[in-house]
Amino acid sequence: MKTATDHTVQGLYQGDRRAVARAISLVENGTPSAMELLNRVYPHTGNAYRIGITGPPGAGKSTLTNKLAKHFRGEGRTVGIIAVDPTSPFTGGALLGDRVRMSEVELDAGVFIRSMASRGSLGGLSKKAKEAADILDAAGYEIVLMETVGVGQSELDIASAADTTIVVLVPESGDGIQAMKAGLMEIGDFFVLNKADRPGADQAVMSIKMILGFRPHDAESWLSDVVKTQASNGKGVGEVADLIRRHREYLASSGKLEQRRTERLERRIREIIDDRLHVDFWDQKRSGELASRLGKVYRKELTPYDLAEILVEDFKRSPASTENAIHHTAISNRG
Amino acid sequence: MKTATDHTVQGLYQGDRRAVARAISLVENGTPSAMELLNRVYPHTGNAYRIGITGPPGAGKSTLTNKLAKHFRGEGRTVGIIAVDPTSPFTGGALLGDRVRMSEVELDAGVFIRSMASRGSLGGLSKKAKEAADILDAAGYEIVLMETVGVGQSELDIASAADTTIVVLVPESGDGIQAMKAGLMEIGDFFVLNKADRPGADQAVMSIKMILGFRPHDAESWLSDVVKTQASNGKGVGEVADLIRRHREYLASSGKLEQRRTERLERRIREIIDDRLHVDFWDQKRSGELASRLGKVYRKELTPYDLAEILVEDFKRSPASTENAIHHTAISNRG
Repeated sequence: MKTATDHTVQGLYQGDRRAVARAISLVENGTPSAMELLNRVYPHTGNAYRIGITGPPGAGKSTLTNKLAKHFRGEGRTVGIIAVDPTSPFTGGALLGDRVRMSEVELDAGVFIRSMASRGSLGGLSKKAKEAADILDAAGYEIVLMETVGVGQSELDIASAADTTIVVLVPESGDGIQAMKAGLMEIGDFFVLNKADRPGADQAVMSIKMILGFRPHDAESWLSDVVKTQASNGKGVGEVADLIRRHREYLASSGKLEQRRTERLERRIREIIDDRLHVDFWDQKRSGELASRLGKVYRKELTPYDLAEILVEDFKRSPASTENAIHHTAISNRG
Repeated sequence: MKTATDHTVQGLYQGDRRAVARAISLVENGTPSAMELLNRVYPHTGNAYRIGITGPPGAGKSTLTNKLAKHFRGEGRTVGIIAVDPTSPFTGGALLGDRVRMSEVELDAGVFIRSMASRGSLGGLSKKAKEAADILDAAGYEIVLMETVGVGQSELDIASAADTTIVVLVPESGDGIQAMKAGLMEIGDFFVLNKADRPGADQAVMSIKMILGFRPHDAESWLSDVVKTQASNGKGVGEVADLIRRHREYLASSGKLEQRRTERLERRIREIIDDRLHVDFWDQKRSGELASRLGKVYRKELTPYDLAEILVEDFKRSPASTENAIHHTAISNRG
């Protein structure tokens, strides 16, 4: 008998858009069947080329993503887009109508767009965005664009979990200092100066190049560059696509694509394990024990460290969780 | 025979500045003796009133912190300051000379200033900053000011691990949208509009108040307010101190101080445990096993989820760690 997951997996491989949407929803909700699904589709991933697009709010990332998607479609390639949209926990929704700017490609059957919002922890969102990219990859989208605002470690994690990472800046962020503080300058394989018709564009390019000059690099390695664009009217988008292609060729010919993907995989596995330990640990029993002894810690009759020790020892003595354990299937039975 | 930790603990309680500095360095380096130290001083914490000060870069947080410290010194109270200074991993140092602005109080024997920079993970910094605040608390500083830039979850965690949290904005950030996106509007017990002599100050105050109006609150609870300051010349600093006093009285009389501190304690214990699990898990053996099977996962012969399962099961079967276990002492023997 076929399970719901079997149907979703089969739909995914046939490029059924509803199956893709359902699979990403499962991942977003973090249900146990999401884990089973991801485990099954994993052998079908690795074919998509993943591009991360990040930068400060208002830099025009959505517009550039939209235009790049259109460009790739013009080359006949299918495109999946994950747009990560951190929301404020107290307004509970996106503040700016970023998604509107995707309208040029959203009716194209060769493009799948998914907007993911943070409800609760950003750390979780980072993991889920990468899992959603796996779904799009397994569903056969040739290019996966991951767009996220560059204002925190989790968002940077998403953007840097790509084969090529592009940082979008505007003349206003030109002195580069804010971008450096935010950690953006480290993760870009190259830089886009968008809204390049605004005053200060050339100085901004100069100052980005100067900062990049400080970045350690050896003679043979990829040299970061800065491309000027006006994404709203498409100017410079072809050059961005061209730089992506050159970076991809560089990664492939130097062996760095495998190296980068292996490193990314290692980080993913570590994340999966930390997450798994967290979920297994904080079952009802140990959450209850923490709650019941919290007063003692508040009254200084027990220290936080001693309570941690007691709970960790209890965890190590407990049998391996079955409730949270992922569904085991031999690798040969998958797909 | 007395250990080095005994000497440090004794020095702390005697208000020896070198002991305080040494203790915070231990915490910063994350050595096993830091855990022992924190475990021993914990029963001596809880006397300091902790104030978190956060806001966007350039809002004048350091200047306000400096002036507030001076104000509290004028009331005869001792002040500890933790200034968290995220640095760029590729420049390896602070970009702006923020610390210079603390000069008014740094020669005062009743003030202890410690600047903490992130080298590597911000998550770790958040934990260490709170531990450093414990050290200052145990050393008898009556007020602990924790200043941090509000540009990420970890920094918000630090600022919100306080009894009173103040968000500093400037007229330029006045529309509040950026501040909301960054999660700043949720965590402020009240708001400071600094550089209030600049154009747009009144509109900024109005718009912050409007946004605060959307925040859920019941009739009896504390109502957030906005204070205008010009920290550089001390204008409005007295009102900020007055609002801190009123908020402290409100927390004490409503029973919310205990509630807030208990919740904070619960988050701390969860952090300690997650950290402990992570360190215990990733010993040499399991790190080696991950490294040796990574190629298999890359080649799709094993999925990340199945590898995670194998390693977690191995962890659960392993004996409780002794190397990483904290030093156990009965609570009655401490202090």
